[in-house]
Amino acid sequence: MNALHICAGHLPQRAAELLDLVRARAPRVHCLMNTVVQKLVADGLSALGAIPSMTSSPEEVASFVAKADALSVNLGTLDATRRQAILIGAEAAVRLGRPWVLDPAHCDYSPPRAVFARELLVQGATVLRANAAEHVLLTVPVDVVSIRTGEADTVSLDHNTLSICNGHALMAKVTGTGCLSGAVAAAFLAVTADRFAASASAMLAMGAAAEMAAEHARGPGTFEPALLDALANLTSEDIIKRARVLDEQG
Amino acid sequence: MNALHICAGHLPQRAAELLDLVRARAPRVHCLMNTVVQKLVADGLSALGAIPSMTSSPEEVASFVAKADALSVNLGTLDATRRQAILIGAEAAVRLGRPWVLDPAHCDYSPPRAVFARELLVQGATVLRANAAEHVLLTVPVDVVSIRTGEADTVSLDHNTLSICNGHALMAKVTGTGCLSGAVAAAFLAVTADRFAASASAMLAMGAAAEMAAEHARGPGTFEPALLDALANLTSEDIIKRARVLDEQG
Amino acid sequence: MNALHICAGHLPQRAAELLDLVRARAPRVHCLMNTVVQKLVADGLSALGAIPSMTSSPEEVASFVAKADALSVNLGTLDATRRQAILIGAEAAVRLGRPWVLDPAHCDYSPPRAVFARELLVQGATVLRANAAEHVLLTVPVDVVSIRTGEADTVSLDHNTLSICNGHALMAKVTGTGCLSGAVAAAFLAVTADRFAASASAMLAMGAAAEMAAEHARGPGTFEPALLDALANLTSEDIIKRARVLDEQG
Repeated sequence: MNALHICAGHLPQRAAELLDLVRARAPRVHCLMNTVVQKLVADGLSALGAIPSMTSSPEEVASFVAKADALSVNLGTLDATRRQAILIGAEAAVRLGRPWVLDPAHCDYSPPRAVFARELLVQGATVLRANAAEHVLLTVPVDVVSIRTGEADTVSLDHNTLSICNGHALMAKVTGTGCLSGAVAAAFLAVTADRFAASASAMLAMGAAAEMAAEHARGPGTFEPALLDALANLTSEDIIKRARVLDEQG
Repeated sequence: MNALHICAGHLPQRAAELLDLVRARAPRVHCLMNTVVQKLVADGLSALGAIPSMTSSPEEVASFVAKADALSVNLGTLDATRRQAILIGAEAAVRLGRPWVLDPAHCDYSPPRAVFARELLVQGATVLRANAAEHVLLTVPVDVVSIRTGEADTVSLDHNTLSICNGHALMAKVTGTGCLSGAVAAAFLAVTADRFAASASAMLAMGAAAEMAAEHARGPGTFEPALLDALANLTSEDIIKRARVLDEQG
Repeated sequence: MNALHICAGHLPQRAAELLDLVRARAPRVHCLMNTVVQKLVADGLSALGAIPSMTSSPEEVASFVAKADALSVNLGTLDATRRQAILIGAEAAVRLGRPWVLDPAHCDYSPPRAVFARELLVQGATVLRANAAEHVLLTVPVDVVSIRTGEADTVSLDHNTLSICNGHALMAKVTGTGCLSGAVAAAFLAVTADRFAASASAMLAMGAAAEMAAEHARGPGTFEPALLDALANLTSEDIIKRARVLDEQG
């Protein structure tokens, strides 16, 4: 399981290191992403220093996952073809030992998505990223990192839980920032076997970038390009300076 | 039909009230939207204060419409699956009493879209939003509000017609602003049974926001985020101050 | 073949003329574009002065190509339906005498795309636009203009080769700028039969616009709207002033 049970006080330094590793290694992240936010997620990964790919064709997904270092799976705009591509992609990730993140987007709106999310969770997902309304419909297996995003982001594995209080309210006004945070988690998972530290670090990096972005935004419209700029300009010092992390009861 | 036959002089005050109602009630708007502009439309609705959803899967659309307060249907990037989803979504909207807006995007380019638009119009659409080239191919049933967008936007029902002269030329340079205005109409329809006032108010709100956005834009690229900012920052006072509305012959 | 074998010293003036022609004639460019970047490509074409359309439905593509002056084909997010639409669209373009550009996006990731790209190249493509990794997998027929984009863009036909050294590193951080440059080439091909000059001029226009955009950007996020502004604001004088073009060995 490789979880080092990092505590709140050590996370900022670890996140700063992992950010620099992402920049140094430029991991490839394949995304099976809803059609609405493919562009934002691709640009967010590029800004961070990762290399995105986005095809969702069942006939192509296995070769793209084989070229990738991590996989991000999102259940938005789900249909029969996308469902098939996700099963192929997840199976390839497990077989090849690639970490992968499940985002059960809007599974609280769509019962078939909730059923599908439960199937995927037990097929070797590394991380679940969901909001509170989605989370309550799912049971997280013991070896899967749980990220619950909201006003604060809670990251849990086994009996360890960290709360990351960074971020900005404008994130909720821009479609796809949650989807992007799942893909950013995949980028961090690609550079370390410590899935708990990677997940928490990714949320801290996103939250710090969102705070930096808000300083350049006049509303949700200008917040989005500012967030991409911030992901590109974010330094390890920014992370350490801005981090607001708490230990929670497991 | 619930149409109050509002006159030009009363529209700004009514539009201001309806904008505040949209903010207060945060209506859910489901969109069956072409793949090109899903992100812009989702972000525009969020900026305004509504809650968007975007799936176009035939197997999911009925449960999303059931969760929504209004539906926005756009015929762009039409294919067999999307056609099926639209039929299911429109039928669900009618059955559940949800208002819905039809945007026959580019039906002047594609004869099958024009045929399909005619079928949908008589199946209980609340509002038709189209540009002049699309409009001439369609006959608007007597109880459907007609919005014809252009340099001025004309809103008609029965023998009543208002012209809204707000807006900005940069809207025509950004793909999806027309599609967004249809979705914004759906958001306004969700908060009042007066379909004529809702439609005219939505066009006025979009036009006022576009004028505010143009003050922050250096071209079509920066106009788009500025438009989203303006939709978020638009106040009832802005609407009243900027409104340029004329009564027309019915 | 209509190629005038323009030399480096004459390209800037020719590109300036062709830009003005694009603005004067507003050519319609139909795009069979991957789902990730449809919006950026549509907005980029509109900013430049062309009129984009984007449907990828097999049942509609022939009528959209018939309405268009040029076609841009991109192999990203390829699946069976899109493959069918591309074959129909390319066949229609050849039959109707419309120029068309092939962008074999990510064919280095996906062997079926490379095979499909080879088939399309010999079916009458006017221009191939690809990066170096994609280019080495393909053989360019003698009458097809080859654009190889990278730090400098190389444009070749027969024994003539020009290198265009304009552009900016931020282009590589924004998903879809390469796809957009293929669509911009299609817009230039729509206004002249000289496919070599059109292709080289399009790359020069894109490169000059990118340089102008970078002056307004704080990172990749603000670079994208700035690029659209620059495509709209670009003048023939900007092209002549900024051009850095070299003759190469054929």
